[in-house]
Amino acid sequence: MSDRVYNFGAGPAMLPIPVMEQIKEEFLDYKGTGVSIIEISHRSKEFDALLDEADTLFKELVSLPSNYKILYVHGGAQMQFSAIPMNLMNRKPSKKAVYFETGNFAKIAAKEAARYGEVKIGASSSDTNFDRIPDVDLNQIDEDASYAYLTSNNTLYGTRWNNFDNNGKVPIAVDATSEILSRKFDFEKFGLVYGGTQKNLGPSGLAMVIIREDLLGHEYPETPKLLNYSVYEKNHSLANTPNTFAIYAIGLVLKWLKDLGGVSEIEKRNEKKSKLLYDLIDGSAFYKGHAMPEHRSTMNVTFNVPSPELLDLFLKEALENGLYALKGHRNVGGARASIYNAMPLEGVQKLADFMKEFERRKG
Amino acid sequence: MSDRVYNFGAGPAMLPIPVMEQIKEEFLDYKGTGVSIIEISHRSKEFDALLDEADTLFKELVSLPSNYKILYVHGGAQMQFSAIPMNLMNRKPSKKAVYFETGNFAKIAAKEAARYGEVKIGASSSDTNFDRIPDVDLNQIDEDASYAYLTSNNTLYGTRWNNFDNNGKVPIAVDATSEILSRKFDFEKFGLVYGGTQKNLGPSGLAMVIIREDLLGHEYPETPKLLNYSVYEKNHSLANTPNTFAIYAIGLVLKWLKDLGGVSEIEKRNEKKSKLLYDLIDGSAFYKGHAMPEHRSTMNVTFNVPSPELLDLFLKEALENGLYALKGHRNVGGARASIYNAMPLEGVQKLADFMKEFERRKG
Repeated sequence: MSDRVYNFGAGPAMLPIPVMEQIKEEFLDYKGTGVSIIEISHRSKEFDALLDEADTLFKELVSLPSNYKILYVHGGAQMQFSAIPMNLMNRKPSKKAVYFETGNFAKIAAKEAARYGEVKIGASSSDTNFDRIPDVDLNQIDEDASYAYLTSNNTLYGTRWNNFDNNGKVPIAVDATSEILSRKFDFEKFGLVYGGTQKNLGPSGLAMVIIREDLLGHEYPETPKLLNYSVYEKNHSLANTPNTFAIYAIGLVLKWLKDLGGVSEIEKRNEKKSKLLYDLIDGSAFYKGHAMPEHRSTMNVTFNVPSPELLDLFLKEALENGLYALKGHRNVGGARASIYNAMPLEGVQKLADFMKEFERRKG
Repeated sequence: MSDRVYNFGAGPAMLPIPVMEQIKEEFLDYKGTGVSIIEISHRSKEFDALLDEADTLFKELVSLPSNYKILYVHGGAQMQFSAIPMNLMNRKPSKKAVYFETGNFAKIAAKEAARYGEVKIGASSSDTNFDRIPDVDLNQIDEDASYAYLTSNNTLYGTRWNNFDNNGKVPIAVDATSEILSRKFDFEKFGLVYGGTQKNLGPSGLAMVIIREDLLGHEYPETPKLLNYSVYEKNHSLANTPNTFAIYAIGLVLKWLKDLGGVSEIEKRNEKKSKLLYDLIDGSAFYKGHAMPEHRSTMNVTFNVPSPELLDLFLKEALENGLYALKGHRNVGGARASIYNAMPLEGVQKLADFMKEFERRKG
């Protein structure tokens, strides 16, 4: 593994090294079958077993209540921008939804939803370039909305929601793509939680959707078959051939997370990792953080250096030091360290050391 | 590779051994980047380069006319059952399409399309359990149809179309999932050709859609963003994170096919492979083919043995002999040898030898 770098990319992101090594090791012969996991039928007993195991592990890791269903859905997070309104907007009381605009993906999601019903922006932090989560009381959502929608962690800006208290009158749909399984999360507070798989779960092209069962079966008549969550639920996500490789890899990631101590343990590690960087930023006049301290994400750490020239040099030297993909998103500029579950403390320590050393030379 | 078996599964299916070995070899470190191809951004220069290369290879392999676009679309073939009517049905002259029912997938596609407009069944071979392609003149399609639709190779039944002559007045959409790149195919005769990737192209969860550019931009207003072919075309299939692993693997498969001599060479090999089995079936009173000889597929060879007990024994002994996944689909019964591009002649020869030996003992 000596040539491997620490990968701070926002996604598709690094996966746990033991998972990557296992995939490589058994790539040509899955469990003695003589075929690869990617060459095997999704209706085989081997695939059935791994799908069941992934479900079981996920349920256990998040203590999922029994009235929630796990779906493995085509198309990644952004396909859900359409699927969520198509499945939920048609519910009583009204064809109306409330969206909280806390970043670029929330904006795109709201725009897509507006094609299927009325969308009200419940709150927005666009005027401060999404450096915070707006001050919102989720107990005050309009009760005539079919659902409310929020992005719990905002990848581009490095912010996250901390208070999800709500009275349950309006089901809340949550895009947790960039933080799913990174901290304790009370699924019972939400109607639907989903995540594109390419950050904390596995390879890209798929999303996991966790939905409360009473929200199934209300889709618009014109919902395409494979955007209809009920179709996935009735067929254990096998209405057609799924992304079998991604589901297999997700199972390995879930097993890795369980073996390491589960969500409470990874949450501690994620806090420790992100604190290392935030303490450095807060103690420096050279680095400037983008997100307001009270809404900082433990997954995506956004910061900048004093000039564009220094940023170019920072990114170039970082790469030379085996610190990969630190460039921030163009909407924010600067640098971003995505430090998902799979990023070891050593990687973050190496980045922090580099940052200190860079500041010493250039600050 | 000594523990590998010959995999006759219908899909996800075997991939070329050199491709599988390359994926394994570079799985932890893609071209010296120090990260895996599955951990890399779809907006990186490395991914851009491989996407471009896949396009170039595909165009070259099929001599694609310049007015056709290549899209890498989420959800596999069955997502296109919805996407095709949503993108094409709204075209003039009418919200009407003609479907040719030559198998189970054509039936499902027609059912899905009927949710978006009027569907006329142009012909069907259901009364003979899809053992043939109905006698159809594609020059006689109703000219008020927005498009016509056919499945060029029927995986479950082992049949394929041989005559695609048409006057071009109605664009024809073709599901070529189980035979794409297996024989010469004149794309100019069609408006749209697509294939789920999990048979002749790569891993599952994706489809390649080849569409004539004048057919873009006619979608229904309610078409979800990631079912809208124009969105894929405008964003070089990167409107959101695609199934990067599948696209990478497809590129390797296309390169393998080019190096081996391209479509004309693989067509010869496929004819030779399938002839080995069909000659055996025709010369035997023990094995009985399902598909009518004049419509036999070179990709899926369907046959049965005299009794269910013998079938169980046949499948069991085949597996013991390293011949994997020969069970036929329940709609047809019996056995099925899927011998896609990646299946070497040696695998088919080994199956033929086993079949002869089994007949000698049990016939």
